[in-house]
Amino acid sequence: MIETIEKIETQIPSLGPAKIDSPILKKRPNVDRHFVEEDERVLVNINEPYIGRMVKEGTPLLSFELAGPRQKIYFDPVKLKCGIVTCGGLCPGINDVIRALVMELYHVYGVRNIYGFKYGLQGFIPKYGHELVELVPEKVASIHELGGTILGTSRGHQDVGEIVDTLDRLNIGLLFMIGGDGTLRAAAKIADEIMKRRLKCSVIAIPKTIDNDIFLVEKTFGFATAVEKATESIRAAHTEAVAAFNGIGLVKLMGRCSGFIAAFATLGLREVNFCLIPEVDFDLEGPQGLFEALRQRLERRRHAVIVVAEGAGQKYFANQDLGVDPSGNPRLGDIGRFLAEEIKKYFASIKMPITLKYIDPSYIIRSLPANADDHIYCGFLAQNAVHAGMAGKTAMLVSRWHNTYVHIPIKAAVQKRKTINPNSGLWFSVLETTGQPSLKNG
Amino acid sequence: MIETIEKIETQIPSLGPAKIDSPILKKRPNVDRHFVEEDERVLVNINEPYIGRMVKEGTPLLSFELAGPRQKIYFDPVKLKCGIVTCGGLCPGINDVIRALVMELYHVYGVRNIYGFKYGLQGFIPKYGHELVELVPEKVASIHELGGTILGTSRGHQDVGEIVDTLDRLNIGLLFMIGGDGTLRAAAKIADEIMKRRLKCSVIAIPKTIDNDIFLVEKTFGFATAVEKATESIRAAHTEAVAAFNGIGLVKLMGRCSGFIAAFATLGLREVNFCLIPEVDFDLEGPQGLFEALRQRLERRRHAVIVVAEGAGQKYFANQDLGVDPSGNPRLGDIGRFLAEEIKKYFASIKMPITLKYIDPSYIIRSLPANADDHIYCGFLAQNAVHAGMAGKTAMLVSRWHNTYVHIPIKAAVQKRKTINPNSGLWFSVLETTGQPSLKNG
Amino acid sequence: MIETIEKIETQIPSLGPAKIDSPILKKRPNVDRHFVEEDERVLVNINEPYIGRMVKEGTPLLSFELAGPRQKIYFDPVKLKCGIVTCGGLCPGINDVIRALVMELYHVYGVRNIYGFKYGLQGFIPKYGHELVELVPEKVASIHELGGTILGTSRGHQDVGEIVDTLDRLNIGLLFMIGGDGTLRAAAKIADEIMKRRLKCSVIAIPKTIDNDIFLVEKTFGFATAVEKATESIRAAHTEAVAAFNGIGLVKLMGRCSGFIAAFATLGLREVNFCLIPEVDFDLEGPQGLFEALRQRLERRRHAVIVVAEGAGQKYFANQDLGVDPSGNPRLGDIGRFLAEEIKKYFASIKMPITLKYIDPSYIIRSLPANADDHIYCGFLAQNAVHAGMAGKTAMLVSRWHNTYVHIPIKAAVQKRKTINPNSGLWFSVLETTGQPSLKNG
Amino acid sequence: MIETIEKIETQIPSLGPAKIDSPILKKRPNVDRHFVEEDERVLVNINEPYIGRMVKEGTPLLSFELAGPRQKIYFDPVKLKCGIVTCGGLCPGINDVIRALVMELYHVYGVRNIYGFKYGLQGFIPKYGHELVELVPEKVASIHELGGTILGTSRGHQDVGEIVDTLDRLNIGLLFMIGGDGTLRAAAKIADEIMKRRLKCSVIAIPKTIDNDIFLVEKTFGFATAVEKATESIRAAHTEAVAAFNGIGLVKLMGRCSGFIAAFATLGLREVNFCLIPEVDFDLEGPQGLFEALRQRLERRRHAVIVVAEGAGQKYFANQDLGVDPSGNPRLGDIGRFLAEEIKKYFASIKMPITLKYIDPSYIIRSLPANADDHIYCGFLAQNAVHAGMAGKTAMLVSRWHNTYVHIPIKAAVQKRKTINPNSGLWFSVLETTGQPSLKNG
Repeated sequence: MIETIEKIETQIPSLGPAKIDSPILKKRPNVDRHFVEEDERVLVNINEPYIGRMVKEGTPLLSFELAGPRQKIYFDPVKLKCGIVTCGGLCPGINDVIRALVMELYHVYGVRNIYGFKYGLQGFIPKYGHELVELVPEKVASIHELGGTILGTSRGHQDVGEIVDTLDRLNIGLLFMIGGDGTLRAAAKIADEIMKRRLKCSVIAIPKTIDNDIFLVEKTFGFATAVEKATESIRAAHTEAVAAFNGIGLVKLMGRCSGFIAAFATLGLREVNFCLIPEVDFDLEGPQGLFEALRQRLERRRHAVIVVAEGAGQKYFANQDLGVDPSGNPRLGDIGRFLAEEIKKYFASIKMPITLKYIDPSYIIRSLPANADDHIYCGFLAQNAVHAGMAGKTAMLVSRWHNTYVHIPIKAAVQKRKTINPNSGLWFSVLETTGQPSLKNG
Repeated sequence: MIETIEKIETQIPSLGPAKIDSPILKKRPNVDRHFVEEDERVLVNINEPYIGRMVKEGTPLLSFELAGPRQKIYFDPVKLKCGIVTCGGLCPGINDVIRALVMELYHVYGVRNIYGFKYGLQGFIPKYGHELVELVPEKVASIHELGGTILGTSRGHQDVGEIVDTLDRLNIGLLFMIGGDGTLRAAAKIADEIMKRRLKCSVIAIPKTIDNDIFLVEKTFGFATAVEKATESIRAAHTEAVAAFNGIGLVKLMGRCSGFIAAFATLGLREVNFCLIPEVDFDLEGPQGLFEALRQRLERRRHAVIVVAEGAGQKYFANQDLGVDPSGNPRLGDIGRFLAEEIKKYFASIKMPITLKYIDPSYIIRSLPANADDHIYCGFLAQNAVHAGMAGKTAMLVSRWHNTYVHIPIKAAVQKRKTINPNSGLWFSVLETTGQPSLKNG
Repeated sequence: MIETIEKIETQIPSLGPAKIDSPILKKRPNVDRHFVEEDERVLVNINEPYIGRMVKEGTPLLSFELAGPRQKIYFDPVKLKCGIVTCGGLCPGINDVIRALVMELYHVYGVRNIYGFKYGLQGFIPKYGHELVELVPEKVASIHELGGTILGTSRGHQDVGEIVDTLDRLNIGLLFMIGGDGTLRAAAKIADEIMKRRLKCSVIAIPKTIDNDIFLVEKTFGFATAVEKATESIRAAHTEAVAAFNGIGLVKLMGRCSGFIAAFATLGLREVNFCLIPEVDFDLEGPQGLFEALRQRLERRRHAVIVVAEGAGQKYFANQDLGVDPSGNPRLGDIGRFLAEEIKKYFASIKMPITLKYIDPSYIIRSLPANADDHIYCGFLAQNAVHAGMAGKTAMLVSRWHNTYVHIPIKAAVQKRKTINPNSGLWFSVLETTGQPSLKNG
Repeated sequence: MIETIEKIETQIPSLGPAKIDSPILKKRPNVDRHFVEEDERVLVNINEPYIGRMVKEGTPLLSFELAGPRQKIYFDPVKLKCGIVTCGGLCPGINDVIRALVMELYHVYGVRNIYGFKYGLQGFIPKYGHELVELVPEKVASIHELGGTILGTSRGHQDVGEIVDTLDRLNIGLLFMIGGDGTLRAAAKIADEIMKRRLKCSVIAIPKTIDNDIFLVEKTFGFATAVEKATESIRAAHTEAVAAFNGIGLVKLMGRCSGFIAAFATLGLREVNFCLIPEVDFDLEGPQGLFEALRQRLERRRHAVIVVAEGAGQKYFANQDLGVDPSGNPRLGDIGRFLAEEIKKYFASIKMPITLKYIDPSYIIRSLPANADDHIYCGFLAQNAVHAGMAGKTAMLVSRWHNTYVHIPIKAAVQKRKTINPNSGLWFSVLETTGQPSLKNG
């Protein structure tokens, strides 16, 4: 990972100098030690011997800006109008983020005008006619107990010019965008357009993706909850597999480009015998292929559990044109149902009776309220997003890196997807846990 | 319901007179008041004015034998060998039943030879080569915490003659069969064959079906757990529906012939707007059809939740030959995916944008461990099954009727399926809760 | 139980003739088969040979009025004002009852004026100054997801005259009272006073007690949820006990006069070795006492789990004057802490090292939202309470009896507490499960 | 924190050179890229400008050894005998650690002799007579579903000489000790004694403390599960508080020296108004004290929730000699019951009626099975502990630091307790969330 990260941009754009005393100063007079200084940063790479080599060479060490409250802020809370929008698919914790943004803006900084845009980017486009939602503490006080997003969401692009028109017309000074890769790209374009028009408007993103695949973000919120829930399906698959002679339990989990949910759920309930992810190719046929490995497993133990990420094995759909989804992503072949059918065919062909149970928990996983871990994480992300925005930072996202909250330029984060490194300790642990062979011929 | 029930058989066959003192007598000397007398029974119908009419006419009142420990038993515990088999699909609580059978036989009656047959009826058939499992308290002490069945299961018929050969060869005196409609029919045939061969072997069934569709059984075990879990999918569907503009959440639940899970889950989480069950016909098209009702609901509230039992709307597959499953039941058309596609087509045709999320929790629901309610229920069923079997009763199942445990002749229970009466208070409550119209044209 | 029940009153008082067509008639034209006729009733005792004896003697069979919608109602929904009040301790499902009352009154009967009285009976008394809460569907739509009561509650008596003054002043025609034994007694007095003043006001109670100890009520709402949660504490106690050498896990559960929670939780997680309830006396010392039985158990298995209901063993506090609580009930001695101390002292005295862990889950159990089973049950109770009230019934409570919803005169239900019969199958099952001896000397 | 950490020892002692090829090499031929080189390390401090200053000064940067599999190992798996012991109080995940140790030793390294010592350090001492438990994969396959420890545990010291005698007699080469601060100190002494006797025995600790208070360990296993469960009690307290007029919910949580559970649970369910921890002093009386702040809160909102860590407010017991517990820690005053009584007295004194509900979830929290997050974490800790031990490292513990697994010398970790820094962002977040004032007079 080091190679790529060496070249990334780490400086956060700003709307201008922060000159106003933070209201926190008055509120908690002896709190000044909490403030973050502008030169506080966190190293991007923290491993020896890399560090030693850089120091020896005199190469400056890359670092990210530390998140947290600043003593001086850019916006006058009394005059400021803030906007919040949630985009893309659901994920546990969105309401936690909304709640904590509102609570922090309102109670800590004294901002009184906070608006929610409804149904994602559609909320900025007049033709959809979605109303603006006024957000006050009472309205959001209990929403962390609910899954989903009280603001609604949608997929797909909207015209950046129209979005900025709306921000301008409504005089929004601080916009919080909660969304995944597509939303981050939109946020970058919106920030560019704002810059071009010389508006005083900051755009702060809180990265959201249940797949946990955003570059430079250690872990996305909702991921822990999703993994926990995914283990339920693995338990179900295992129970079904064990109860049948030559029983096979097959579970499809989310993960378009990255197999993090599949891998962590496998580590989270250690009953999985084969974990298939987009990052690691596998064969079905042949002496090293999945079918033969599965056959041997059944001969040995009479049951087997397979977890497959939705983006795995897409080579089997290579000759099909599946189109794109509303977000513009290529539609994936349904690897879960494909595997279920192919496995059945294979064992029919060798006349070995099996019982296969296929489980696709789908939306059950992503529509949950956050668990305690994600409640806490969402709170920190949102509080730091507010601190950053109030200080006039823009075109950035809040992230956790080496367990510390930092600011990341959006453009750095959208360079690439985060994926599982097949040579990492993480994947090695999965292999140790499942005991699965390479599943690749020759 | 009264009409049918008037004519049912309520007398339980017996292997012969029970002459042995129950070991409970010695164990708990002051416990005699717990014993059930042979003339204790529970009325089948308990409603006025029906009862008054019968009394007036001098028609005898139908009643079921009361379950519970008898002072005299038929089998000598020291010599007795017992068998347990679990058949058909999984259901929460099977392991509870196995555990309680073993504990009751072992600790209360002092039976020392208890065997589990593996993988359902296959376990009796030599050619499959499944080993017999010796069941002792230590082996089953913690299995109630696990879903599934430790004995394994299978679907489909096996030769009754071969089954009885095995019972005879192994000298099994008391066989407990845990299974659904098919298993009950098999149990009746096995008992007949035993009778014919004049073997001293009792067959006691504990009815198991997640669909809760067994006649003369108030509620089957595992049903409460299944309903509780099913509400999770409804919550997910509701969360997804609310989060999208014109969002539709569609959940398919189990229920081949009876919509009990769909109906109770609808009452268990009151966010459902349309509940579709096999017992109540519905149209898709036309002014009263589902599509139009759904359209109106979306116009009014911008989201909708639909729950459909897997056996509902089978008229839409009338012209397709779908074959039969391994249990010999006709395969059902996949009403869930069908509805998802048809609803999308309909709204595309009227150019109304919607977002539909389809959830099929399938095996997640039935592979769970029992909840506390089902733990308790399974314990009572199994304890009463043992009391009945030890007393020499046979060809019967244990049931709960008017909240009391009773003995039911298997042949009476397999006459027909239990279904939801569309004129009952139950279905009326569902209608009150969903607010759904009749969904039938003209 | 038969003896007492033979003599109870089963006739429900009424405000007067029901002459108005039920709005259900218009709303669901083909629904008339759902209506309950006035002569429909459910037998109180349903067991043979009791029934046969009565019939032979010509003694009329006692029966309760069947609950459900009536074709004719007493109140004009357009003019009716309804009140709801929740009293006493929390219990899972109170918000479900409130929600279903409001939904049924509003959507099914078209009642538009529904008010909540705050903080129990205090809500009727002007000096407390609690505001009245207007209840509409939007306000209660999601409250079933929350524990507690949105109306607040309080313990203790208030002046009946003042309460009726308030009902009169506000012109309340239909009052729903959700509460336990004390509340039922208050409801009876309020109904009497209303009668005396010849007001047109009906009082319908929905019995609430987490102890499940109300006479003539098969099961109170919230009880199933409480039992389920209580098993968690037993699991914790068992885990702690097993992890220590001579480990003892001791759990105190609710149950002032009746040990239902303790008994059902014991059946719900079969790891309990001693279950102590108010209905069954036990000794600590002596050859048959708890200490010696516990010592033997530890010698044999090295761990033990004890469940004690809060009202058990009160003879050990006989010489202490503990006063009364705000509801006027005598304060109980803390049997949990007492046992913990006495057990430690005993084993110290015989120099046997033990590790005792004491768990008192207290309010964790009663402040939960209802589980699916209780959601469903609360819905039925409330719907039937509304049907009864609209039909002009009064001074009654809704109950489930032999698994059927019925009307019970409040005065019949408050005659005595429901307790566990030590000679019942229930208690026998507990003994079979724990394997505990009599715990009584001589 | 920087000051202390600058001076800590970071070098890991070793039994001798690792010369044997790791079995991983043969098993997964293309896996060599997973191996950790001996010079791979992780910086202790990763913050600018501290790093820049050190580099400028030429001060070497402190770093911890990176955990993970080594290409060369010290022990011959065929001959090696391993021991596992679990000490101190329960904590979610202990069984996960045991399971993963056994699985990793057995399946990855091929070790065949693994023994569990029963009931903590007592297991090494002959006079207790506890048997040794042979640990094989089948025995531990499902234990991660259970709370507690299958090996049992105990508190208190045992003679180090006797412990090492036992290790020597049994020829244990690799001892894994799972325990808290006391166990770590014992482990250091055992390792010293082993060194002195020149035995070939490595001691690897896996730090366990539900309080999350071990220095140089970012987060201890089980903590996330405990926090999640603790939020349940907060929800109960909030529900009870809201349901009463001037309702107060008071929850006591674990945390002897450190308030991490209290603080994180407060962030995990944002309904807490006062969070009291050992690290931050507070007054009860006076204009800034808790009583007055509580009174104001009640006047404003009519309910309040207080969370108190068990070690908070110990100044109120300063004049009492409470003795020490079996582990030798001073017994704490029961701040929960003390606060409950004092708050009641205070409000009685000002004649303001309140309702206070006190909840002490105690062992319910620590006896749970791990949640998915802790399952995963325990797996990584144990796998890395095995890698370290096989490589001949000793007198160390496995830890996570900056989200990376590292080796820490035990002696460095026991220097001090980890506590909450009242000037940290963590505590500031708690204050922002509760809105509580300083609670200190003058």
